[in-house]
Amino acid sequence: MTIILGENRYGKAENRVFRVTRHGDTHEILDLNVSVQLSGDFAATHLTGDNRNVLPTDTQKNTVFALSHLHGAMEPEAFGLVLARHFLSNHPHILAVEVRLEKFDWDRIVCNGTPHPHAFRRNGSLIRTATVLASRTTTGVRELVVSGLKDLTVLKTTGSEFKGYLRDQFTTLAETTDRIMATQICARWHATATDAATLDRVDWLKQYNDALHTLLTTFAEHHSLSLQQTLYAMGERALSVLPAIAAIKLSLPNKHHFAVDLSGCGQENCNEVFIAADRPYGLIEAVIQRDNAPSVTELWPSW
Amino acid sequence: MTIILGENRYGKAENRVFRVTRHGDTHEILDLNVSVQLSGDFAATHLTGDNRNVLPTDTQKNTVFALSHLHGAMEPEAFGLVLARHFLSNHPHILAVEVRLEKFDWDRIVCNGTPHPHAFRRNGSLIRTATVLASRTTTGVRELVVSGLKDLTVLKTTGSEFKGYLRDQFTTLAETTDRIMATQICARWHATATDAATLDRVDWLKQYNDALHTLLTTFAEHHSLSLQQTLYAMGERALSVLPAIAAIKLSLPNKHHFAVDLSGCGQENCNEVFIAADRPYGLIEAVIQRDNAPSVTELWPSW
Amino acid sequence: MTIILGENRYGKAENRVFRVTRHGDTHEILDLNVSVQLSGDFAATHLTGDNRNVLPTDTQKNTVFALSHLHGAMEPEAFGLVLARHFLSNHPHILAVEVRLEKFDWDRIVCNGTPHPHAFRRNGSLIRTATVLASRTTTGVRELVVSGLKDLTVLKTTGSEFKGYLRDQFTTLAETTDRIMATQICARWHATATDAATLDRVDWLKQYNDALHTLLTTFAEHHSLSLQQTLYAMGERALSVLPAIAAIKLSLPNKHHFAVDLSGCGQENCNEVFIAADRPYGLIEAVIQRDNAPSVTELWPSW
Amino acid sequence: MTIILGENRYGKAENRVFRVTRHGDTHEILDLNVSVQLSGDFAATHLTGDNRNVLPTDTQKNTVFALSHLHGAMEPEAFGLVLARHFLSNHPHILAVEVRLEKFDWDRIVCNGTPHPHAFRRNGSLIRTATVLASRTTTGVRELVVSGLKDLTVLKTTGSEFKGYLRDQFTTLAETTDRIMATQICARWHATATDAATLDRVDWLKQYNDALHTLLTTFAEHHSLSLQQTLYAMGERALSVLPAIAAIKLSLPNKHHFAVDLSGCGQENCNEVFIAADRPYGLIEAVIQRDNAPSVTELWPSW
Repeated sequence: MTIILGENRYGKAENRVFRVTRHGDTHEILDLNVSVQLSGDFAATHLTGDNRNVLPTDTQKNTVFALSHLHGAMEPEAFGLVLARHFLSNHPHILAVEVRLEKFDWDRIVCNGTPHPHAFRRNGSLIRTATVLASRTTTGVRELVVSGLKDLTVLKTTGSEFKGYLRDQFTTLAETTDRIMATQICARWHATATDAATLDRVDWLKQYNDALHTLLTTFAEHHSLSLQQTLYAMGERALSVLPAIAAIKLSLPNKHHFAVDLSGCGQENCNEVFIAADRPYGLIEAVIQRDNAPSVTELWPSW
Repeated sequence: MTIILGENRYGKAENRVFRVTRHGDTHEILDLNVSVQLSGDFAATHLTGDNRNVLPTDTQKNTVFALSHLHGAMEPEAFGLVLARHFLSNHPHILAVEVRLEKFDWDRIVCNGTPHPHAFRRNGSLIRTATVLASRTTTGVRELVVSGLKDLTVLKTTGSEFKGYLRDQFTTLAETTDRIMATQICARWHATATDAATLDRVDWLKQYNDALHTLLTTFAEHHSLSLQQTLYAMGERALSVLPAIAAIKLSLPNKHHFAVDLSGCGQENCNEVFIAADRPYGLIEAVIQRDNAPSVTELWPSW
Repeated sequence: MTIILGENRYGKAENRVFRVTRHGDTHEILDLNVSVQLSGDFAATHLTGDNRNVLPTDTQKNTVFALSHLHGAMEPEAFGLVLARHFLSNHPHILAVEVRLEKFDWDRIVCNGTPHPHAFRRNGSLIRTATVLASRTTTGVRELVVSGLKDLTVLKTTGSEFKGYLRDQFTTLAETTDRIMATQICARWHATATDAATLDRVDWLKQYNDALHTLLTTFAEHHSLSLQQTLYAMGERALSVLPAIAAIKLSLPNKHHFAVDLSGCGQENCNEVFIAADRPYGLIEAVIQRDNAPSVTELWPSW
Repeated sequence: MTIILGENRYGKAENRVFRVTRHGDTHEILDLNVSVQLSGDFAATHLTGDNRNVLPTDTQKNTVFALSHLHGAMEPEAFGLVLARHFLSNHPHILAVEVRLEKFDWDRIVCNGTPHPHAFRRNGSLIRTATVLASRTTTGVRELVVSGLKDLTVLKTTGSEFKGYLRDQFTTLAETTDRIMATQICARWHATATDAATLDRVDWLKQYNDALHTLLTTFAEHHSLSLQQTLYAMGERALSVLPAIAAIKLSLPNKHHFAVDLSGCGQENCNEVFIAADRPYGLIEAVIQRDNAPSVTELWPSW
């Protein structure tokens, strides 16, 4: 029996890049949190402390800021591709790169009806996400771009039922035909294409906006018999609207709002007053995909 | 020398009240986090464990939900007054009540250009706040209503200088005539009036919206020589716009964005790429008030 | 009616100072989070942006690190005094200084029964705190040192009752003679003395350890009829043990552990299985003091 | 092209179970955070809202508390196995169960040199973790138990170098032969065995304590040429000490402590004063394993 080094990677996490692009008095801003992870031929540093192959995480940080400087404003997916390609192009012993990006959105402050040219406010807790995975293969570099969003909190006060479920010895839940449904959407989707030429033509911003709009409106309009059914409807609709997307993964916590029992206070609460609970919470997760979607688990096992 | 009980209070904190008001298919929602603290004649429970005067915090929780049920949708300030008055009216040995409220705002999801009647999304990280303090005095009950907001993150990419400051042996900072200014606004303001009749006539929502708009636009439009000057301008403008307000307290962290030194990477960074720093951060706090503002420190020492 | 500048202060918050003191191979470490706030003659920067009186927060940061370098390992209270005195001594227009310190404790890692000379592990979530307030008066500088701790989570599985409380129309709570009592202790205490000579002779570490030990053992051994009674017993005992202390303030959230109703699962739960709840929670706060304790609210209104 | 349901699962997350076991006056406590996720034949609820196969997450919550009641104090791994086996035994259409457990450790409060029989304090931020995955296969149920810990923060003030690394156009880092090394250890390890009989004989507590001790002492004693080398040494040593373990995965953020440049303050800082940085941070991750370790990625792709 021998002890060996298994899968390994390293990098610089959470580089907070703020990029300003000036068009005279009017400024564009890009606010990103960028994490880089490299894998490849890094056995020596693990086994003997020989660092000759190690590109320091400090250098990775410099690279993130320097390439942001060179390239200016970009969609997060495109900037992730720039970074991943840089590391693979410059360092043959790096075999795979993962770049994770979070984009924080800002709105212009409106003064006298006019959006201000260089003053902004954060517009919400919603975070746009992108992950770029690039990996050398025998036939070249395979690139996977996964776009997404997280912390999109939504709620509907009716149009949600839950009944007809399985019962066992520990079931005490009452059926309901009218409950509050609330969740905090985390969604990720990836393209069918994994070649650079196709990926470079994607309009990432339009795709994101279409996905966001579809998820929101489907949540609102779908009459729900279970959170699973709502999840599937959201994913199915997103795939219908976005033909370039192969699969979408949704993770939906069920943020319970319980009607408060006011009978002890001499009041009958007809679904008017609720307590928003913290823990525990339901958690529903699923991938909705085309039947011919390429497998991406080789590049990202738990995407 | 004797050991005695000094100032004391108790209550139920962070009651997460979600109130739905139905107008047919169209629903209004009110999402609050309500904390209650009572003070008065509570020496016995401290000294001997005699609880005869103790209104359990569980009962306070029930009261919050039951009164929300009875009163329906209200501005947070008004609901705080309802709660404070309830405890003082029903329990003569309670001498003072503090109700702290946080209001989470939601927007209707827009489907086909129409706001949905009962589906919503959280619209940001900004939290509206209200604190009601009611206290028995020899001449009746004095009420103080403090409105506010927190977690309003704003940023401007120019229009901010910092120069001409004091220097000592530990000064290394370079002067600047063009920097990013970013902060996360926490603001509180209170009325001149402390009598129930006047307070009950205040349009709290309009006051809040006017304050929010004034703080945002003043931040955007003011050419800043220091964050202190910006703070004062914001407060002064708010007092000008809101004649019923006696004072406003602003707490502004200076969320530093440092231009990244890329000279070691062979690049000259002309204020284009910044790193958003976490800690440490500057912190600027001040009260801006009318010269005849009533003192409220008796009711809220550190308001 | 004129708009004026009211109370104001500014400074650098959350300077994360890590100080190593080397005795050959054996190293001592001091891990602090230091925040400085200055007040004084700062009207000009607010009103006109004239910064001639403004000691930049960046300089304050440098000062914290430079004085840590000069003075080496110290108790947090003593380092706070060093900083406060520095700012008052060097800058006549600074009238008051507040230094808030958090100290993170580390234990040496034990190898083969021996504490390691320079390897450490964080030993808990408990944080030691200190606040130094120094203020010019007509007769010199008045100094207030408030020591404390926070995030000390404790729990007892019996020895806690709650019964005989006040009832009103909203009371539904059942009385109990045996419940879990859990809280997260936040405590602050201050000395009777406010003169430099006396303060400089205090053994801050011994005082802290005595206070911590007293709070823990009193919580454990006291048979509780209410959390208020437990709080008072803890404070009274601390004052008895620490003769130099004038007052102690305790803030105790009641971290509810509710016995789970398993009757619907065919089981009778005799106080064996509980759910640890998040929100809402009770919150009990009080000052226990000597009857001749000096008032400190002038220096710290909400201490 | 057809849209289909891909991988999916659901459950109740973060059930906060607090279990008391009484031996007369002496009480044992078990404080857990338990999350359950089920997968199997759940297509119907996604596609049509037919919930006949859905065991509600509320029932899963009841199950967690009821089985804790029935089984009493157990190691987290053993309780996870109880839960996983329960769901698989009772519901043939459930094909796989994941139970994630966090265990919060408490020490008895010591009074007069004696550990108190029923009063406790949380002893740190370190969290013990366990994940049980049980999955039906053609030959029965395969069980994977992954034990671990997280939030174990350690630091050494010397014995860490970083030099001889790769340089490119963006490298600016200076080499060092003496730096602070600090990290927050997240570790997971799993047994070679995946059959119930062997798993039921494991002494989970001893294994955990041995792993914790080995990770701590190896971190302390290893002279480090890179964090990767330290990581490998920790993993290799853990595998040497724990013969039943097949693999260990370590995730080590490099919590940078930078020596502060005090030259502008007229001081020379010889590695005495550091600033503890927040972001960005290095992140080093690797699996150390026996060469004959069974693959577990089928059960847990990103274990």
